Amino acid sequence: MTPHPQRRRRGEDRREQIIDQALGSFAENGYHNSSIAEIATRCGLSQPGLLHYFPNKAALLAAVLDYRDRLDYDRFGMNRQLSGTEALRQLVQLVEHNMHVPGLVQLFTVVTSEAVTSDHPARDWVVNRYRIMETYLAGALDGGVTDGTFRPGIDTRAVAREISAMMDGLQLQWLLDPERVDMAELFRAYIDDLTIRLSI
Amino acid sequence: MTPHPQRRRRGEDRREQIIDQALGSFAENGYHNSSIAEIATRCGLSQPGLLHYFPNKAALLAAVLDYRDRLDYDRFGMNRQLSGTEALRQLVQLVEHNMHVPGLVQLFTVVTSEAVTSDHPARDWVVNRYRIMETYLAGALDGGVTDGTFRPGIDTRAVAREISAMMDGLQLQWLLDPERVDMAELFRAYIDDLTIRLSI
Repeated sequence: MTPHPQRRRRGEDRREQIIDQALGSFAENGYHNSSIAEIATRCGLSQPGLLHYFPNKAALLAAVLDYRDRLDYDRFGMNRQLSGTEALRQLVQLVEHNMHVPGLVQLFTVVTSEAVTSDHPARDWVVNRYRIMETYLAGALDGGVTDGTFRPGIDTRAVAREISAMMDGLQLQWLLDPERVDMAELFRAYIDDLTIRLSI
Repeated sequence: MTPHPQRRRRGEDRREQIIDQALGSFAENGYHNSSIAEIATRCGLSQPGLLHYFPNKAALLAAVLDYRDRLDYDRFGMNRQLSGTEALRQLVQLVEHNMHVPGLVQLFTVVTSEAVTSDHPARDWVVNRYRIMETYLAGALDGGVTDGTFRPGIDTRAVAREISAMMDGLQLQWLLDPERVDMAELFRAYIDDLTIRLSI
């Protein structure tokens, strides 16, 4: 028997609310230092009430990361493969956008680095995410080589790793010292130079 | 009355041992998820025995970060200001060296990112460290401009922030996926390109 439509709707709203509050808690405190009890309180739920939706903290983190992935996927235009300079410009826009969503950036920075600690439930997600990014960005750079915008012979996987590293490193400095570090400006300058370096 | 020399020596040895074990614990678990009790056990000490040397976990973290700073300071050659391409080559050597001390790199990566979370005791240390790096690296690049190796008009503080970001981002990817990511090779390629971009 399927649930009553309105009840299902309320269940989905509740799940979204829990994911939203969990995202805030993981970003502010890290995964290890967040608790189911505190997230339940943020949602106005009892602990068993929350556990009805997500059986444990690791399941909740997985749901938060899936949610972030879907946002990225849409915003990043990864549903269609951009190529060459168009893909690089898209990245600059992504970083500009990120300056308006510090909570999401902080979640990513905190959880990604925490994932290098022992037995972290997000480790596979994080490792896999970098591999996907490498493949996506290398593909975009290969597209630029194919269409004649970029020089042949570029190690596109290496440049892809470099671009990800620059995004992450600038995010961290911006989160720590936002008055002093304009990550979008710094990233744009980096991408402009990179574009010159890659171009024919 | 000064303590007996041999007793003082033993006290210093004990402090070093505690710092060494705390460093391992913070790197493996993060600061929030480490405990004084566990670090005391690693040292074969009781909890009050450890608290005799360091009054709380934040004091222990400060000692660990000071220790890491001294290592960096010596290794990095920050005791004398290098300039231009010589400073950039030194950075490549530092990254090569870092591949042999994954525990120290992990400590830095974990604690630096954790410092963006609420009320983290290392936050000031981390923010300040990036400012010092910015000043040191910008000074090195300015030196290259002065001696005529680098082009005039470079925004050396921006390039300094960019270099730090690349180091951090590559460290993270290497810690997560060491079989796939050769951070020294990637960083060397980045610095080679940067040197060309900066040079006259």
